[in-house]
Amino acid sequence: MLTGIKLVMLGGDARMLEVVRYLSDLDASVRLVGYENATLEGPDTTRVPLSPEILADADAVILPVAGMSDDGLVEARFAQGPLALQDDHFSAIPKSALVFTGIARPVFTAVSRRHGLTLIKLMELDEVAILNSIPTAEGALALAMEHTDITLHGAQCVVLGLGRCGLTLARSLAGLGARVSVFARKPADLARIVEMGQKAVDPESLTDAVATADVIFNTIPALILTADVLAHMPRHAVVIDIASAPGGTDFRFAEKRGIHAILAPSLPGIVAPKTAGRIIAQTIARMLRERM
Amino acid sequence: MLTGIKLVMLGGDARMLEVVRYLSDLDASVRLVGYENATLEGPDTTRVPLSPEILADADAVILPVAGMSDDGLVEARFAQGPLALQDDHFSAIPKSALVFTGIARPVFTAVSRRHGLTLIKLMELDEVAILNSIPTAEGALALAMEHTDITLHGAQCVVLGLGRCGLTLARSLAGLGARVSVFARKPADLARIVEMGQKAVDPESLTDAVATADVIFNTIPALILTADVLAHMPRHAVVIDIASAPGGTDFRFAEKRGIHAILAPSLPGIVAPKTAGRIIAQTIARMLRERM
Repeated sequence: MLTGIKLVMLGGDARMLEVVRYLSDLDASVRLVGYENATLEGPDTTRVPLSPEILADADAVILPVAGMSDDGLVEARFAQGPLALQDDHFSAIPKSALVFTGIARPVFTAVSRRHGLTLIKLMELDEVAILNSIPTAEGALALAMEHTDITLHGAQCVVLGLGRCGLTLARSLAGLGARVSVFARKPADLARIVEMGQKAVDPESLTDAVATADVIFNTIPALILTADVLAHMPRHAVVIDIASAPGGTDFRFAEKRGIHAILAPSLPGIVAPKTAGRIIAQTIARMLRERM
Repeated sequence: MLTGIKLVMLGGDARMLEVVRYLSDLDASVRLVGYENATLEGPDTTRVPLSPEILADADAVILPVAGMSDDGLVEARFAQGPLALQDDHFSAIPKSALVFTGIARPVFTAVSRRHGLTLIKLMELDEVAILNSIPTAEGALALAMEHTDITLHGAQCVVLGLGRCGLTLARSLAGLGARVSVFARKPADLARIVEMGQKAVDPESLTDAVATADVIFNTIPALILTADVLAHMPRHAVVIDIASAPGGTDFRFAEKRGIHAILAPSLPGIVAPKTAGRIIAQTIARMLRERM
């Protein structure tokens, strides 16, 4: 339980509604800034306007996944107007408070450091990123189902990268009966792919692997599907690129070649906001409990 | 190969384009009636108008999955006008020819019998129905992903029925990491569910099983999700009913109770027409080869 803990939540999207619900169910006292248009009920939640006073009383301040823009704007889907943090807001936050965000741009990180605040970038924590890979993978599967006229069962699927998302995606595809090949560079990753019963693709065999692919899932945030690689792909193949923007695909060449390539970052908040919110909420709750 | 075999294909949808492609690739000679607006190329395909003469020369006549309506109309998505079969068309078909359809209404069956024709109802063949359950299950998964704000991974899923579709659906859900319960009546089916490592739900425990469900998949073509059963379901639960129309759900009561229930029969042709077409084509090819 989080009895006695005072939270200030600043802005957010559908995921944060689940965070509000989860944390207030644990008996935290939640003050909501920028939630004017949200329909939500919690045992101890109040909507308040943004002010240094509200922040001065917080044990933790929770920003949405996208964090804060360089000019202080905080995404606030349910707010009546723009929500912007200024220097006096940061000054007001107690030094002992935790400041949670999904990701943080350098300016946000610098401002927090200047004010001596502990900024926790949730999306950089393995425990969050691994669980987040589940809605990411399901979103990628749903896109592949929607944009092909074949089943994933029996389809030749190539997953690029065996990071947190690649591993989950490879397992989910195998669970549906797809024929899965996974591209990786590190020998240890290639060994894990073999252990998983899937086909390991090293850099030398990448063009061969894509030549027979029906669907290619890219998780690598660097240009990997170059014009040269794309030129080896059959025209019916579909690329689902879930690496953070701008992805790892030469989209210009893909279009020229007539290959359907879709850039789809940030899937969890779109396909399963409730699950994605719960993942965030559980980690916030754990970290708050550890400080109690 | 089907060298020398003369086929007449009457009307159809996206699936039948794959059938045309597959059978003409096997060297069959394919005459297409009602494909004026289809873009397709095959080595030995010609578009012809409907006439008794064309049918008189056929080794097999292939209708679309839906077969023929009681007034002789054949679904022809790519035709410039309606396509209707009359008595003289049936008279012209050689008695030795095979007539393929997906399903057949009693009138179609009766007309075929009166003319001494061998009518093959592809969707009633286990080999077709089992393979067809794969696109059906994937379509059901895609709908569940779309209509919930949680991941299927970790979700409480109840599958009603362990027929061809139920079995495939239960396996696919388990492959994605869902927590799967399966309802069946027959002791042998309940034993199979246990063997699959899933929770077996018998008629006595059905209301308990749905009480904690996030997603319920119905495959039983009879009223099973009655008002009484629906009354035990949480309001956030989603029903995906893939049984043939009118499904197995009391949709009126579901709406009244605020439960989102979706009737989604005939998924294969919608979600994976190419795979669905190939399934049909492979069985047609096998049966034609056996007659050569």
